[in-house]
Amino acid sequence: MNLSYIIIIELFGTIAFAISGAVSAIEKKLDLFGVLVLAFVTAIGGGTIRDVLIGNTPVTWMRDLNTPMVILATALLAVFFKNRLKLLPKTLFLFDTLGLGLFTVTGIQKGIAMGISPGICVALGTITGCFGGVMRDLLLREIPVLFRKEFYASACIVGGSVYVLLLPVCGQVIAQTVAIVIICALRSLAVRFNWRLPSV
Amino acid sequence: MNLSYIIIIELFGTIAFAISGAVSAIEKKLDLFGVLVLAFVTAIGGGTIRDVLIGNTPVTWMRDLNTPMVILATALLAVFFKNRLKLLPKTLFLFDTLGLGLFTVTGIQKGIAMGISPGICVALGTITGCFGGVMRDLLLREIPVLFRKEFYASACIVGGSVYVLLLPVCGQVIAQTVAIVIICALRSLAVRFNWRLPSV
Amino acid sequence: MNLSYIIIIELFGTIAFAISGAVSAIEKKLDLFGVLVLAFVTAIGGGTIRDVLIGNTPVTWMRDLNTPMVILATALLAVFFKNRLKLLPKTLFLFDTLGLGLFTVTGIQKGIAMGISPGICVALGTITGCFGGVMRDLLLREIPVLFRKEFYASACIVGGSVYVLLLPVCGQVIAQTVAIVIICALRSLAVRFNWRLPSV
Repeated sequence: MNLSYIIIIELFGTIAFAISGAVSAIEKKLDLFGVLVLAFVTAIGGGTIRDVLIGNTPVTWMRDLNTPMVILATALLAVFFKNRLKLLPKTLFLFDTLGLGLFTVTGIQKGIAMGISPGICVALGTITGCFGGVMRDLLLREIPVLFRKEFYASACIVGGSVYVLLLPVCGQVIAQTVAIVIICALRSLAVRFNWRLPSV
Repeated sequence: MNLSYIIIIELFGTIAFAISGAVSAIEKKLDLFGVLVLAFVTAIGGGTIRDVLIGNTPVTWMRDLNTPMVILATALLAVFFKNRLKLLPKTLFLFDTLGLGLFTVTGIQKGIAMGISPGICVALGTITGCFGGVMRDLLLREIPVLFRKEFYASACIVGGSVYVLLLPVCGQVIAQTVAIVIICALRSLAVRFNWRLPSV
Repeated sequence: MNLSYIIIIELFGTIAFAISGAVSAIEKKLDLFGVLVLAFVTAIGGGTIRDVLIGNTPVTWMRDLNTPMVILATALLAVFFKNRLKLLPKTLFLFDTLGLGLFTVTGIQKGIAMGISPGICVALGTITGCFGGVMRDLLLREIPVLFRKEFYASACIVGGSVYVLLLPVCGQVIAQTVAIVIICALRSLAVRFNWRLPSV
């Protein structure tokens, strides 16, 4: 049951980030191929870096045809419904935020499964959550979202820390769910109320 | 014989991409070291990402002194004959295109040898073919060739798909040769007739 | 004793690059999180790429909590003393240069321990020394230091070559010390007297 829960988390995170990548590419007027590439890079970027750093190779998406299929289908749907998506920036923001929370949790879980120490797992989860977006921004030559947005990776670090603290107490499903809620809530509140860390 | 064929393909691809990287650096007025770095990054970038993604480490160029030697010699020759190279943009384009076709095929072949499923191998081949150029462009702060040029990665996907379809029928040498010809032909025709995928 | 010497080299290199990353972020007016990220990326970037290329995974900083702790402490101190650091660009330059020399040596040493041929180890050391700074610059969207500064990677190549030539004659400690001195001296002299490689 725990296994299937993390698989569902990974699936929804993949869909959310694929939409975010596809929409960024559509806004930049890229061609169909560019849209597909951005959807893939955003959806698998964080997980790929995670797998490479921990030596989990061939990386996950190469051993599992479902992930590429889901991204392809999601990107094509995004292209098909692009006019509707543009009307829904708030829905889109929610998807992106959900992806951030979901992928941070998958990164931490993989690290813990490898026996990596909890503090490092929080960093690994944060990388997993954030780097799909960073790679998307580098390819589009934007300032990486990491540095622009209010409370982006900071939300992952807070939620991830709660995860590793709760894990021995509550078990995986509850710890993961609480972490996802915290990350998404922090990120949403930060954007809603324009919270920022102070410039140093 | 199959083995030596793929080695020849890899060798010519390396030379072609080393020239492309060196000439890009020369045009940007980099110093000799910058030219060598760009030649290396362009020639080994795609193969390095391929090796890292499939866990084939230490990466190929670290275990084989010939590759760095070939790149060094190629880059120095490019510097020496730089005036002549500038007169030949079409020859250069042919080399770049040849590199794209050759490296896509080596990427697919390595993936198949690892037992990765054919559809994923096409993606792996496309990454191998394209990412040397993407890394070159990122280092030079250009918009990645992937998004600028007509039919760049798309040609790899089409040619790569033909490769994995032909492989069980015709054997490696024929499948590889046909794939290289298709990729180079598609790319050349696309530039000649300004084919583009539609903006979505 | 040799082991502890290389650990000290790695420690000082980490501190030096963490300062360099933190100060770059402070100058760009990033928030506290951005400063921490830049300190981490600069300090672990080169070593992470080294570990990934040679297949030494999970990468070093994931197996050793000391490194992240040192970087965190260094970055916080850099923020705390930021006014004082700004007054000391020459001290800062010395730290950056020291980091370059120290990390080049650790990269070569790891490559030799893996049985990689000496010429390739020089390239591996140069990558280890330079790529933290390159990643920092890419994230800040600057032209990579590699291409801007006088004699940056070239100094690593010269010093690294001396290291692998001296190693069979003098033993590790002397070879490493001489290499570090050469790299730092070349780099300092190059900046002092504005040495540049000729544009080709």
